[in-house]
Amino acid sequence: MTGRLAVVGLGPGPEAQLTGAARAALAGATDLFGYGPYLARVALAPGQAAHPTDNREEIGRARAALALAAAGRAVAMVSGGDPGVFAMAAAVCEAVEAGPAAWRRLEIEVVPGVTAMLAVAARCGAPLGHDFCALSLSDNLKPWETGERRLRAAAGAGLALALYNPASRARPWQLARAFEVLRELLPPGTVVVFGRAALRDDERITVTTLGAADPGLADMATCVIVGSAETRAVPRPGLPPLVYSPRGAAR
Amino acid sequence: MTGRLAVVGLGPGPEAQLTGAARAALAGATDLFGYGPYLARVALAPGQAAHPTDNREEIGRARAALALAAAGRAVAMVSGGDPGVFAMAAAVCEAVEAGPAAWRRLEIEVVPGVTAMLAVAARCGAPLGHDFCALSLSDNLKPWETGERRLRAAAGAGLALALYNPASRARPWQLARAFEVLRELLPPGTVVVFGRAALRDDERITVTTLGAADPGLADMATCVIVGSAETRAVPRPGLPPLVYSPRGAAR
Repeated sequence: MTGRLAVVGLGPGPEAQLTGAARAALAGATDLFGYGPYLARVALAPGQAAHPTDNREEIGRARAALALAAAGRAVAMVSGGDPGVFAMAAAVCEAVEAGPAAWRRLEIEVVPGVTAMLAVAARCGAPLGHDFCALSLSDNLKPWETGERRLRAAAGAGLALALYNPASRARPWQLARAFEVLRELLPPGTVVVFGRAALRDDERITVTTLGAADPGLADMATCVIVGSAETRAVPRPGLPPLVYSPRGAAR
Repeated sequence: MTGRLAVVGLGPGPEAQLTGAARAALAGATDLFGYGPYLARVALAPGQAAHPTDNREEIGRARAALALAAAGRAVAMVSGGDPGVFAMAAAVCEAVEAGPAAWRRLEIEVVPGVTAMLAVAARCGAPLGHDFCALSLSDNLKPWETGERRLRAAAGAGLALALYNPASRARPWQLARAFEVLRELLPPGTVVVFGRAALRDDERITVTTLGAADPGLADMATCVIVGSAETRAVPRPGLPPLVYSPRGAAR
């Protein structure tokens, strides 16, 4: 009996944001793993078993899913957004590398999805329309100094920035410090977008400037986009501004 | 009569990679615009009009779509991958800013999709599993020196790199030069993935190293991922290697 593991991106949240391939991978699973709130988004079919786990338990969750796949089950690991961007696919790969040899023979499929920065960008225009980077502000697994060096390098080179994991109750100060660093490098008028729960019912998109940005607007459900110096916010009567980064760079 | 414009991400290509929201946006359009080969992917319903255009005509295409929306039609602009990543959403925003005031009152919706780097990453593991950037190697709209400076900054700061527009018949040398630059900064064993037509029938994923990477493997349908020094390729018996960037960074 040969099992398999699909690592499935649920996208930003609503069912309409799933791809057909993601829906099919979920439907074909006997067992579903994932962080509880993500797993709760999936309507289980009769006979499907849910294995919810806590946050911050990525490696244990990955090992449990791989063990069940190795035992012959068809396992799906769900991930918010895209599994390959600050999510479960890397944890699964890490568990395979450190695990028993048999896990390297398993059929493993990653099913991509719409990651948070793309949802936030879509809801305000095209702030990631040219060169950009995606950085995690969490210092759980990375020294803060490394993150700060990356912020400086990327902003200094003219990239727009998508900031994942900007804040949580356990990490209240990182985003404020990131804004301090960025204010040394970018004009105060630089466009900043707080994208909370983009494309969900409780969505809140706030367009502001680096000079005025209040880090308190971010929580665990927020992705913050900081434009480059070339990013523009086009005012529109009766509508939110249209934020975009031009397709090129000035000569 | 109020028109509207939806800028719709078709994802990597196959129908199964579209989101439900993208399918609905296409179905609700009276008129569809886009680069010919992308538009050809969409099965038109009776009464829907297709307006295919050539490549490199983004602004003209955006203006034509906006004009038709302003005339009361329900227009969809299709985009490969995600419209917000090196694609049509920024061109539409640019056309709105430079266009007649009435265009700022139009209902404009960007419908996100799975962009190429996420598809390539999914097909080889999780090479974008931690901090990364997305850079275009095209110098059509950006001086090459700017692109080279961004490559150096991002690679030097330890980011994985997703390189869009690595090569075309009109731009044959850029990727070779990019590899030269990166070889000054990264070890020769750094993992490189050529992801051509990821998730399509003619997919070709090649995992190699920076020291051995042949720029000739890239064409217009390719997204190239260059790992950081920490990115790993885990060998698997009888299967392609599993490529991933660890979820953190070494202390």
